Amino acid sequence: MSGSTKPQEAPSVTEVTDVEAAALNLTAAQARQRFATAPVARLATVGPDGQPHLVPITFALDGDRIYTAVDAKPKTTTNLRRLRNIRADPRVAVLADHYEADWDRLWWARAVGLASILGDPAGAAGATGPARARADLAGPLERLAARYPQYRRSLPAGPVIEIAVERWTGWAASPGA
Amino acid sequence: MSGSTKPQEAPSVTEVTDVEAAALNLTAAQARQRFATAPVARLATVGPDGQPHLVPITFALDGDRIYTAVDAKPKTTTNLRRLRNIRADPRVAVLADHYEADWDRLWWARAVGLASILGDPAGAAGATGPARARADLAGPLERLAARYPQYRRSLPAGPVIEIAVERWTGWAASPGA
Repeated sequence: MSGSTKPQEAPSVTEVTDVEAAALNLTAAQARQRFATAPVARLATVGPDGQPHLVPITFALDGDRIYTAVDAKPKTTTNLRRLRNIRADPRVAVLADHYEADWDRLWWARAVGLASILGDPAGAAGATGPARARADLAGPLERLAARYPQYRRSLPAGPVIEIAVERWTGWAASPGA
Repeated sequence: MSGSTKPQEAPSVTEVTDVEAAALNLTAAQARQRFATAPVARLATVGPDGQPHLVPITFALDGDRIYTAVDAKPKTTTNLRRLRNIRADPRVAVLADHYEADWDRLWWARAVGLASILGDPAGAAGATGPARARADLAGPLERLAARYPQYRRSLPAGPVIEIAVERWTGWAASPGA
């Protein structure tokens, strides 16, 4: 459909960027489908002090679950800020977007959900649920390797962040394209 | 420089995504410079309930200030979630990143700072400082129009979010490129 209130005009920045300005025009299924095509997304977490944290992530989807790997050295992995944040508060937002000079082709898709850490070196001390066996990593790592040749050459050791998506939203300048 | 600890290997996902894994290899000036080249970035805010919120933004830079416009209809503008969040807590993170299949060309740059709202329809009731005159919008809107032809055809009405950047960080697979 292209029946916005201003069909003759270029999309406004509000339509580009905000779900609340009546611009959200993708169904959850459409948002998820577009999200799945992106090679990179951005993960927002919140620190115990309330400071938002933001990093780009590679990812793989399995239904309504997003997986992204961390392969830092064990000593540093435990202390990564995104992991610290998730242990303290599992609420996250993840965004994929597409930009072109032609704004008729813009779109974005957002996932909001709860994150947990598979193979967490901090073990059961985390606040995100019971410690998960490293065997849980196999499926997610396979999915990541299927998407990224770099991971086929060198599989990340983990841990893996699993995000159970509770809500998919999104906008596209040309939602039917 | 290319003197990482693993110069012969493809960048790991940690190098791609995390500033804390000794991967932060851009100076503040370099991170800012790369950030400035991106046509789109992502703005993370936090809701009063602690939920992270994430939207793509078009933006213009003026030194260590990032400007992004909102041009929703006045009735909806006041209530946009990003604005509500910023009024309650001005702390934000903004991320620009570059992805290619060739991971030797990946980079990202992040700004952390405090946001305020210029031309806020909610007026002085906001928690982000005194109400600013609409005249304050002129410079930022000119900068936005200079970057985006769409804005030259139709200048956003505002308000404009101004982010005073306190810290630039970033990573590049090939920092000298």
